[in-house]
Amino acid sequence: MNAPNIQFADLTRLVLPESIVLVGASEKPGSIGQRTLENLTVHSGWQGRLALVNPARQTIAGRACVPSVADLDYAPDVAILAVRADLVVDTLRLCGERGIRYAIVFSSGFGETGEAGRALEVRMREVVAETGLRIYGPNSPGLTNVNGRLGMSFSPAFKTDQRPGPIGVASQGGGLGRSFIQAMDRGVGTGLWFSGGNEVDLEVSDYIHYMADAPDIEVIVSVLEGVRDGPRFMAAALHAARRGKPVVALKVGKSDYGIKATQSHTAAISGSAEINSAVFKEVGVIEVDDVDQLIDTASMLARGKPTGRERIAVYCFSGGTAALASDQIGLGGLVMSEFAPQTRHALSQLLPDYAAIDNPVDVTAEVLVDPSLTYTALKTTAEDPNTDIVMVPIPVEYGQTTTLLGESMVRVQRDVKTPIVPIWMSDRTGEGHRHMIEGGLMPMRSVRNAVRAMRRYIEYGRWKAQRDPDWAPLGRNRQPASTATLSEVDAKFLLQRAGVAVPASRMAATPEDAARAFRELGGEAVAMKVVSATITHKSDVGGVQLGIRSAEQARAAHAQICEQVGRACGPGQVEGVLVEAMLTGPFVEVVVGIHRDPVFGHVCMFGLGGVSIELFKDVSRRLLPLTPQSARAMIAETRCSELLGGYRGRPACDVDALVDTLVKLSDFVVEHAHRIEELEINPLAVRPQGQGVMALDAVLSFQTTEKSTW
Amino acid sequence: MNAPNIQFADLTRLVLPESIVLVGASEKPGSIGQRTLENLTVHSGWQGRLALVNPARQTIAGRACVPSVADLDYAPDVAILAVRADLVVDTLRLCGERGIRYAIVFSSGFGETGEAGRALEVRMREVVAETGLRIYGPNSPGLTNVNGRLGMSFSPAFKTDQRPGPIGVASQGGGLGRSFIQAMDRGVGTGLWFSGGNEVDLEVSDYIHYMADAPDIEVIVSVLEGVRDGPRFMAAALHAARRGKPVVALKVGKSDYGIKATQSHTAAISGSAEINSAVFKEVGVIEVDDVDQLIDTASMLARGKPTGRERIAVYCFSGGTAALASDQIGLGGLVMSEFAPQTRHALSQLLPDYAAIDNPVDVTAEVLVDPSLTYTALKTTAEDPNTDIVMVPIPVEYGQTTTLLGESMVRVQRDVKTPIVPIWMSDRTGEGHRHMIEGGLMPMRSVRNAVRAMRRYIEYGRWKAQRDPDWAPLGRNRQPASTATLSEVDAKFLLQRAGVAVPASRMAATPEDAARAFRELGGEAVAMKVVSATITHKSDVGGVQLGIRSAEQARAAHAQICEQVGRACGPGQVEGVLVEAMLTGPFVEVVVGIHRDPVFGHVCMFGLGGVSIELFKDVSRRLLPLTPQSARAMIAETRCSELLGGYRGRPACDVDALVDTLVKLSDFVVEHAHRIEELEINPLAVRPQGQGVMALDAVLSFQTTEKSTW
Repeated sequence: MNAPNIQFADLTRLVLPESIVLVGASEKPGSIGQRTLENLTVHSGWQGRLALVNPARQTIAGRACVPSVADLDYAPDVAILAVRADLVVDTLRLCGERGIRYAIVFSSGFGETGEAGRALEVRMREVVAETGLRIYGPNSPGLTNVNGRLGMSFSPAFKTDQRPGPIGVASQGGGLGRSFIQAMDRGVGTGLWFSGGNEVDLEVSDYIHYMADAPDIEVIVSVLEGVRDGPRFMAAALHAARRGKPVVALKVGKSDYGIKATQSHTAAISGSAEINSAVFKEVGVIEVDDVDQLIDTASMLARGKPTGRERIAVYCFSGGTAALASDQIGLGGLVMSEFAPQTRHALSQLLPDYAAIDNPVDVTAEVLVDPSLTYTALKTTAEDPNTDIVMVPIPVEYGQTTTLLGESMVRVQRDVKTPIVPIWMSDRTGEGHRHMIEGGLMPMRSVRNAVRAMRRYIEYGRWKAQRDPDWAPLGRNRQPASTATLSEVDAKFLLQRAGVAVPASRMAATPEDAARAFRELGGEAVAMKVVSATITHKSDVGGVQLGIRSAEQARAAHAQICEQVGRACGPGQVEGVLVEAMLTGPFVEVVVGIHRDPVFGHVCMFGLGGVSIELFKDVSRRLLPLTPQSARAMIAETRCSELLGGYRGRPACDVDALVDTLVKLSDFVVEHAHRIEELEINPLAVRPQGQGVMALDAVLSFQTTEKSTW
Repeated sequence: MNAPNIQFADLTRLVLPESIVLVGASEKPGSIGQRTLENLTVHSGWQGRLALVNPARQTIAGRACVPSVADLDYAPDVAILAVRADLVVDTLRLCGERGIRYAIVFSSGFGETGEAGRALEVRMREVVAETGLRIYGPNSPGLTNVNGRLGMSFSPAFKTDQRPGPIGVASQGGGLGRSFIQAMDRGVGTGLWFSGGNEVDLEVSDYIHYMADAPDIEVIVSVLEGVRDGPRFMAAALHAARRGKPVVALKVGKSDYGIKATQSHTAAISGSAEINSAVFKEVGVIEVDDVDQLIDTASMLARGKPTGRERIAVYCFSGGTAALASDQIGLGGLVMSEFAPQTRHALSQLLPDYAAIDNPVDVTAEVLVDPSLTYTALKTTAEDPNTDIVMVPIPVEYGQTTTLLGESMVRVQRDVKTPIVPIWMSDRTGEGHRHMIEGGLMPMRSVRNAVRAMRRYIEYGRWKAQRDPDWAPLGRNRQPASTATLSEVDAKFLLQRAGVAVPASRMAATPEDAARAFRELGGEAVAMKVVSATITHKSDVGGVQLGIRSAEQARAAHAQICEQVGRACGPGQVEGVLVEAMLTGPFVEVVVGIHRDPVFGHVCMFGLGGVSIELFKDVSRRLLPLTPQSARAMIAETRCSELLGGYRGRPACDVDALVDTLVKLSDFVVEHAHRIEELEINPLAVRPQGQGVMALDAVLSFQTTEKSTW
């Protein structure tokens, strides 16, 4: 489903090369070249062929060394560049010319430092274009393949990154990526970490696409400051979805402070936070707000395949904690399971009278001193046929009690499939905590964190279940350029041609025309508006009159509009006056806006008209093209849907017609996507069931450089 | 300011008694009596006089033992009961009769187990009433005085609770209280922990009130499932405010699941979550949602006295992390400091070119290998005159780098007053983490957690700055009883007498009266409504007609209303028809509701009229009595205030008159508080500036058992 021009390189040999050349190898303790060599030879378990380049040495650490890449008698899969910034471009060119496929560039001093650095990056891209070499970095701490036990990294921390697993990470900066990696100490196995730095060539999207196909990776994590190429990112995300692998992302740059800090850090363009979030949601990227959420959500997803219908049991030895957990499950909009009769019966046989055998289960601390009982009670809960996740909040380190609980939990998890999710709430840790981590149970750190991770897990399941595999975003992104706006009459004409109802109307050149138009339009109320390509705010210049109820009034209004507009705007601006039938009967006013986002392409926004949209920001967004399903979902997401459903005795509105119209508007913009920058219908009147919808006003902006006809 | 009937006992001798009797002392390993004795004699540093009671022994662990409390030749300050539930009441009576002042009851098997247990609790309260003994518990793990090094507790964990400090905790259940206590391992010094169990007598409010006066406690923390006595709780909280001590509370029972779990756990009545939160906010209780937030917020408050105007600097060695922190500060609505020129100058002298010397400061990891530079750069940031808090997010454990950072941070904090708040984001810990904890810096666990704690810290400062020390809540709580509703005419009459504008109106007995009333009311539009004490939904029975514009129409409407209502409700229900002038000109419709909360007394609710209040829940709440200040604040809290301020070219509304009317409504309800259950004005029309407000409809419910006149 990728657009034909979106290509992704196969990175298999970058991630696990058969041969590597380290340019800038060194013996000097603490130097980048020395640390990297140590990581490759001492802390890795890699058996490939390693060449070293250093013009000043013949051997390094007992290994042969050549003066230049040009002196190699074969082309290694990967070149690692641990050299000064000013040597990077020439070295890359040598690599490319030698037929090396990938270069990992540690060096900093490029785009992040200013103009001269950006010029070097342009030259690096020229090497890519001219030689076919693919560049990872620069300004990168390297590539860490934990599952393959290969650290192409200068980090002294690599040797401690020893917990392989099904999670793969693609980050831009290094700090937050490593922060995620260190969750290994909480039991989060992370098999692969791309830390792509300035991304002169390969970027986060490439790493996501690779991991979607990588057999050892099941969950993809990304930390990013800006999406450089929206369509590529969406294509990579949808590829992961097709492979059944969730993508969890932390995107920095949502507030003014964050955007400013991001720009000064990596010069990344943050884009609109609202659009980013809407796009992520639509292509199945699970967005989180902090590193701990990234860890918790990825952990959950590494433990099961959500369906979107998960019901939760709480198992605890503290009544207050059980109540807190239940409370947060409710506040988070999740569902607690109702135990089957056999579960209740079995628990009541096992546990003492004062224990709570309903969900939440409170076994009380007294019970947790009996190993067999502890095992059986938890297993019974986890085997309940109505339970899909067991949450075990543990408020305190409590010596023998929590040790036993940890052991039992690991044993039960070996015997039942239902994920058991411990929450270690205390800052004091002990044996029980260690058992969980070693047993692969990855404890969460607070009830709220756990509930949020579960919510994201379940929502992802729902997204998967509802996703349309044939849909792909239009992705016609473009930087804003010279635009113009159609007159209301022209815009409505196009809408009508696209199948969208607009009010019946007549153009009136003279007062007499206006009177005749009034009669032809059925003799009820009409609105009259000046028509002019140059006047945008018609009301401000006296160009609009509403609620005209007789031919006589229409005649007078025409004269008055022409006179007022002429006075305000000078002669020759008035093309005529539009006489338009006013809608009678009840209706709800909604707003539909489609605009071209410079990163992701056209996005549709929907919300309630009037003050609600501005006071309460109650809008939903979807990428084009809309489908009947996505249009219906975007209506349902807003509070507005309650009004449309027939609020407090009002008639239910024609939501089917609204869905149909949203799709028609989408189809219309898709057809003219090369030229339409923005289309806003405000208001779109949604009438009672069976009566349809009607666009009461419309504004259409288009790119003036596009010369073709509508 | 406490209401005269709210009394709090002095608990000094309970918290640090000079003498204790342990009833149920034992040598049996692992028994409650043995563990308690060990805590008192081995793990405590207490020097007071200890008596032991056990009818079966003459000595225990080498100490003399008597058979009964009655055999003591003096009255100890505190009796600790480690006896079976069925012995508790008689033992308490002996204690009371012996003149013992306080009893701590560990035993469970009371209210939490059902009817028989509740009956025992009634008998315990009789002992309190008859002997003056005050009871702590039952079903309590005890009272832990860390600052006084005295553990009146059976918990084997007491011996590890070794970090004294300025935070005191009052919890109902034990698990969440201990969860807080164990934050000691993250550096949170907790001096005192009340864990009051079933609260048959002393309750959380008593402990809060005590800690407000305790010289060793600066910050009060509470975990509660239900507020039993609203006025007592509010009095305790305001007492803490007067003493300058913040109260941070985690209240469980906000969702249906949580309320259900709470009830089955402690039978506590959760009350309305919205009202609870509004009351907490108003009496300065900082509400949090989970234990980790409780820890973080209390930690922040233990480190400074907020003013509400704090500006934050971010100091970091990772650009991405600095961007994330800035982003979250912005999303949290907090303010980043703008460095003074001397700060920028000093940082630019200290740091390399590629470091970011503006806020956020990114010193880069390279810098953090120089001890003197690390110290100086952080000190320079912390001394910036525009900075009130320094946030130091640390994404990773990074060996020597983070060790040095931890050391420097502790040294700088000794030399500057500005709080330095580290965030240890990684799950891997090391020397640097340990340095911070030992140095009293209490690292937060995520950027979001830290931002939320800071926001609560700053908001508390704002509350303190704005609080009216003379205000106290009315606190006329009462369980609902038999109520009746006044007719609209009577309600409006009372409002008018209270100084609230209502539409001019006339009662019309006949159609002719109605026509005359129309003329007398100025001959513009009128509304006509049936008047009846028995009909509540007037529109539903054809009892309302709006927009009547002539005497003729008024006459016809009268006949029609009488006819329709008579048909719908039977004869004799119509007392007359109210003819009321309709308001012309622009206005904004708001809703004001005052109702008696059974826990806290009368609360006022304010919001925008129409669909907004129901679709968007955009309301604010305040306890009665309102003051002009609190009324203005409750308007400003809603989105509605944007509309009232003159939204998009509409005229600004008469907010002064609205404030005045809210206070008058409050005064009116306060005057009749013994009887008014609920008063709702929906809508209250707020007209343009200078034109006042007008109550267009009013419903008043009152307690029918109150016989006095209005």
